[in-house]
Amino acid sequence: MERTNLIKIIQKKRSVLCVGLDTDLTKIPKHLLADDDPMFAFNKSIIDATEPYAVAYKPNIAFYEAEGESGWKSLKKTVNYIRDNYPDVFLIADAKRGDIGNTAERYAHTFFNLYDFDAVTLSPYMGHDSISPFVKNAGKWAIVLGLTSNKGAQDIQMLESDQGDKVYQKVMKSVASWGSPESIMFVVGATNEAQLAGIRDSFPEHFFLIPGVGAQGGDLNTVLKNTFIRNEGGVLINSSRGIIYASSGRDFAGAAAENAKEMVEDMTKFF
Amino acid sequence: MERTNLIKIIQKKRSVLCVGLDTDLTKIPKHLLADDDPMFAFNKSIIDATEPYAVAYKPNIAFYEAEGESGWKSLKKTVNYIRDNYPDVFLIADAKRGDIGNTAERYAHTFFNLYDFDAVTLSPYMGHDSISPFVKNAGKWAIVLGLTSNKGAQDIQMLESDQGDKVYQKVMKSVASWGSPESIMFVVGATNEAQLAGIRDSFPEHFFLIPGVGAQGGDLNTVLKNTFIRNEGGVLINSSRGIIYASSGRDFAGAAAENAKEMVEDMTKFF
Repeated sequence: MERTNLIKIIQKKRSVLCVGLDTDLTKIPKHLLADDDPMFAFNKSIIDATEPYAVAYKPNIAFYEAEGESGWKSLKKTVNYIRDNYPDVFLIADAKRGDIGNTAERYAHTFFNLYDFDAVTLSPYMGHDSISPFVKNAGKWAIVLGLTSNKGAQDIQMLESDQGDKVYQKVMKSVASWGSPESIMFVVGATNEAQLAGIRDSFPEHFFLIPGVGAQGGDLNTVLKNTFIRNEGGVLINSSRGIIYASSGRDFAGAAAENAKEMVEDMTKFF
Repeated sequence: MERTNLIKIIQKKRSVLCVGLDTDLTKIPKHLLADDDPMFAFNKSIIDATEPYAVAYKPNIAFYEAEGESGWKSLKKTVNYIRDNYPDVFLIADAKRGDIGNTAERYAHTFFNLYDFDAVTLSPYMGHDSISPFVKNAGKWAIVLGLTSNKGAQDIQMLESDQGDKVYQKVMKSVASWGSPESIMFVVGATNEAQLAGIRDSFPEHFFLIPGVGAQGGDLNTVLKNTFIRNEGGVLINSSRGIIYASSGRDFAGAAAENAKEMVEDMTKFF
């Protein structure tokens, strides 16, 4: 999906919500386990209920991979279901891949061709040739880890580098030079409140995928105040557990929609 | 597999060869495509022919993932085939994963429980909580990217950090503190000839998984001279394309064995 189209969807829905489909068989409502394909059944209900509020969905591939072949089948059905029913959705594979050029080509093939995602999350540690296969095709995106939301972000990303920059700042500058704001986004964790405004200043045009609101402790208003680009959005605010596991009962889809709706109401005033 | 057991296998086979199973349907001999499961058929023949020389096998997950469900099935059959027939093999999932703690747990489950690998390659960018779920169980290993073999290694890993260290040096010191030489190995690319001896000095006990010999240009003798630990090995030298695609004809397995044998002959004198 092209950047202009993504922005149109954001304006239409007046939302920058991304729903993380971290679908875990040990956490979904028990009654779904009787279904032929519980992961897909769960995702379908969540998507149907939340799509008016969500501009993006982001399955974290770890949860599908952990179920073996049947997990990949559920993932494919989920992607196809969205493509067949909801044109106004940006679709992200949260895979955090990163490998040498010829291998990165295979990963790009998997997520862009075999599964029809718009974007894949990537780790930058292996440098340019691990990212470039993902930014060659118009409308396809690399979403590269910048400053992440977890505690471990302190370990490598926040190391001092030369000329006063932290490692994550060097990383983001390099990565930005390997593509354009039409093909590269950054992962910027909501928990890094002190850094958000500075990151937006350094990258005024790039979209940020922002996890860490909710369960991980990031505050939605603070995040939007520091990163939102008026009218365009310029951010995708991810919520996974806070939405999809809002209830563990039969009302799970309605509860997810309610939580999604509340988040979107907080977003509206920034447009 | 425990470290002592791995060393015993290395001593028995007088080899530190790891064969990279980067099995690509566009590159395997054409006559195999008529098989019900061409990826597995290819792997089985390669394994049967090279196992006397190889102490480890390393499927790169990208190549299996790119075939969807059937690729994961071929991967599982490959792992099971090795486990059922060859006890003297260390098995590495080259996945380069890295995610926040609860997600990393799922990846560890996938590769250690669902697929019975001994080790998984990981990217360190997200820090401690992305690595720790992989080093909790005795006999299971995290093989973490240190200084990689590709050109892009220059972009992030070779950046200057504080106190005169490069980023990769800081990364390796941090990562080493998150486990022990019984649970953590490092990926160190063979193409970094100028750095190899220094890395071994800094990490005298850790195993290094060393790709980049052959197709990528690293020299086997130089690598071993600088990193081999007498008797124990302390390295796993990976060759993928140079062995598995030694011939594209019906003699592919024999040709692979021949190339593996030649590499192992070069290793023998270091024991």
